[in-house]
Amino acid sequence: MGTRVAPNAVAAVSEARQWDRLMELAKLGAITGADGAPGVNRPCLSPLDREARRLLIGWGKAIGLTPSVDALGNLFLRHEGTEPGLAPVLSGSHMDSQPAGGRFDGIWGVVAALEAVQALREAGITTKRPIEIVAWTNEEGGRFAPGCMGSMAYAGHRPADAWDDVTDGEGIRFGDALREHLAAEADIPRRGLGVVDGPAPHAYLEAHIEQGPVLEQEGHDIGIVTGIQGSRWFLVELKGESAHAGTSPVSLRKDAVQDMVRAINALNRLMEDPTDVLRFTVARIEVAPNSSNSVAETVRFTIDFRHPDAAVLTGRGDAIEATIRGAVRNCEVKVTERFHALPVEFAPQVTETVARAAAAQGLSAKRMPSGAFHDAQFLVPLCPAGMIFVPSHRGISHNPAEYSSPEQLAKGARVLAQALAELANG
Amino acid sequence: MGTRVAPNAVAAVSEARQWDRLMELAKLGAITGADGAPGVNRPCLSPLDREARRLLIGWGKAIGLTPSVDALGNLFLRHEGTEPGLAPVLSGSHMDSQPAGGRFDGIWGVVAALEAVQALREAGITTKRPIEIVAWTNEEGGRFAPGCMGSMAYAGHRPADAWDDVTDGEGIRFGDALREHLAAEADIPRRGLGVVDGPAPHAYLEAHIEQGPVLEQEGHDIGIVTGIQGSRWFLVELKGESAHAGTSPVSLRKDAVQDMVRAINALNRLMEDPTDVLRFTVARIEVAPNSSNSVAETVRFTIDFRHPDAAVLTGRGDAIEATIRGAVRNCEVKVTERFHALPVEFAPQVTETVARAAAAQGLSAKRMPSGAFHDAQFLVPLCPAGMIFVPSHRGISHNPAEYSSPEQLAKGARVLAQALAELANG
Repeated sequence: MGTRVAPNAVAAVSEARQWDRLMELAKLGAITGADGAPGVNRPCLSPLDREARRLLIGWGKAIGLTPSVDALGNLFLRHEGTEPGLAPVLSGSHMDSQPAGGRFDGIWGVVAALEAVQALREAGITTKRPIEIVAWTNEEGGRFAPGCMGSMAYAGHRPADAWDDVTDGEGIRFGDALREHLAAEADIPRRGLGVVDGPAPHAYLEAHIEQGPVLEQEGHDIGIVTGIQGSRWFLVELKGESAHAGTSPVSLRKDAVQDMVRAINALNRLMEDPTDVLRFTVARIEVAPNSSNSVAETVRFTIDFRHPDAAVLTGRGDAIEATIRGAVRNCEVKVTERFHALPVEFAPQVTETVARAAAAQGLSAKRMPSGAFHDAQFLVPLCPAGMIFVPSHRGISHNPAEYSSPEQLAKGARVLAQALAELANG
Repeated sequence: MGTRVAPNAVAAVSEARQWDRLMELAKLGAITGADGAPGVNRPCLSPLDREARRLLIGWGKAIGLTPSVDALGNLFLRHEGTEPGLAPVLSGSHMDSQPAGGRFDGIWGVVAALEAVQALREAGITTKRPIEIVAWTNEEGGRFAPGCMGSMAYAGHRPADAWDDVTDGEGIRFGDALREHLAAEADIPRRGLGVVDGPAPHAYLEAHIEQGPVLEQEGHDIGIVTGIQGSRWFLVELKGESAHAGTSPVSLRKDAVQDMVRAINALNRLMEDPTDVLRFTVARIEVAPNSSNSVAETVRFTIDFRHPDAAVLTGRGDAIEATIRGAVRNCEVKVTERFHALPVEFAPQVTETVARAAAAQGLSAKRMPSGAFHDAQFLVPLCPAGMIFVPSHRGISHNPAEYSSPEQLAKGARVLAQALAELANG
């Protein structure tokens, strides 16, 4: 049905309105980064977060949407369907930011869902199913770790009180911050908590900035997100022996820095990937005694390995320890796996809907996995789920310099509007 | 003449007496290291240092030696020659230690000179020239930086008041500590300051533990030190760009860790040395932001490069920056040379004397450069100079676990006795 109803809705998407709303929201927690970049610091469940939510609720109510809040503080704005009893289509993201974050990560997905729904309504397009705009609580994990608490609780992945005792940097408990927050939103109707208290949604579609440079580099408008890649994180510890840099012959050393270099060389060969899909990163290194004229006694370094294909993630990931042991010459080796998340695959029903919408609008689109985690991954077990990416300038994110243009964001909202219309009529 | 006079002197060297004196001195500032290793913390010009010097003076006086002190606190014990007007042969080292030092570094060179002279005297051997045992002030630089102040001032390399304003960790000025020290030794005759106030010595010979593993690994008794290798120290700074480890394709990264690995690989090839004489060390690495899932934006690493041959030091050292620039792919490169000391060569007159003495005693000896700095290097411009090494267990030094056996130290003292006898009759 999307091919029939969508053109009007697409035309009703307002680039200016969406941008103005983002700029209005960006004032709440505005910070200035390097070179004057206009960033945001808006911790979850803070007064600033509540101000942002009130703005959103106001915009939603003004066009006839109904707000509600669940026990985790997840905020919903409901566009009613012609058959209100059917499971809704869910679309949104999060409104909290990193401590030195940008103006688009998360918040655009919420504003885009509002823009899409508003466009549908202004175009006079009804949908069989309700569409619910969602703002998930604490995706970033910047104030309370881990992130994605709202979507995890919604999905029944963890109990609602699982993080009550987590504290922020000032010692405030998550449970207390949440109670205070819900009290401040007591005027907003309460609803049950996701699939814990009710049925699953019909589908989930989240719009988000790419947070990587691929779409910009390759000149695409839209990323059709096929899934979220899997991640394995390792800590490698090498124990050698300190020695005098002047008196100790190189052949007799147990030099932990040189063994680290051997290990990384071997890992680079293991992780070679001409398709450039695999992500292999050594980004944290600690040397002891870290004195320029004392041969390194110990080195600790991290490995961050990601891939969308579980077979690659398992095959190469399982080879990491043996690869290091085979390369290291003089040090004792300890390899510890600290995190292991399998890849998530989005439903063809959603990705094909997004692909059709982009094609119908003559936009250049690329199928790609998401390199970062998102709330969407916790919806995958519940219903057909997916994501839409738009380009991030130079791939910069979690940084005040984060930028996507008004035009790029409008293209994303138009694809979202058409896809939501199709999903909500399916 | 050594071949005639030495055998009696060699026989008179007492392994037990020398060891007992070292153990007596090791009580002054005794500390306990890892695994209960018995170390020493005896800062220069401290009350402990003065106690140690008083012990030495007492042992010297008991056998008829004459103490004297110069303006830097350098302490001398004079064995008179049959022709007292001739320039003396000088032998000794230092009595201060590293903050967590061992029982042999420096102090053995002083005790060995005393043992050698005592053996000559007990064997009834006279020498044409005087022999002066010297304990140089502040070789380690542990309390007041830099080290080798005493020998530098003696050699006129720097003025006697050059370091007056240097302060220790408690804010005490070197000038004040020295004045207090000289007041405490006011009963000891003062003498002029080295070549600033008088003629050069006839020769200088310093006994020292190797502080490296070569003699032990290769089974030698004695190191005939041919010189002190030159050193060049560099700081390398790589500036790339931080990026999300999950979203940023490897091909588009400016990863400072990967460029560091490329640089070290290339430097390892530049510094290849089948003779194992060259010392190339990367021992200090600082990564920013040093977060496991953010591609490294910057890396700073140090290079410590040493070689006894000035041509190698210059040739390969000058190639370091171009080698790094040729290897690095994505980062801006800055290479700063922070220290440059040319190699020092000891006089064949001294090295051959040591070689003859070792051979005459049937000891296994190896010609080798010193990897570490020593007071001896400042004597090189003044007179024929040289050093004798004995094995260091596992090459450990600047550490309570530092160890050379009583037998190894006695062999060193015997070679020193024979060499001093020969030099003092030359």
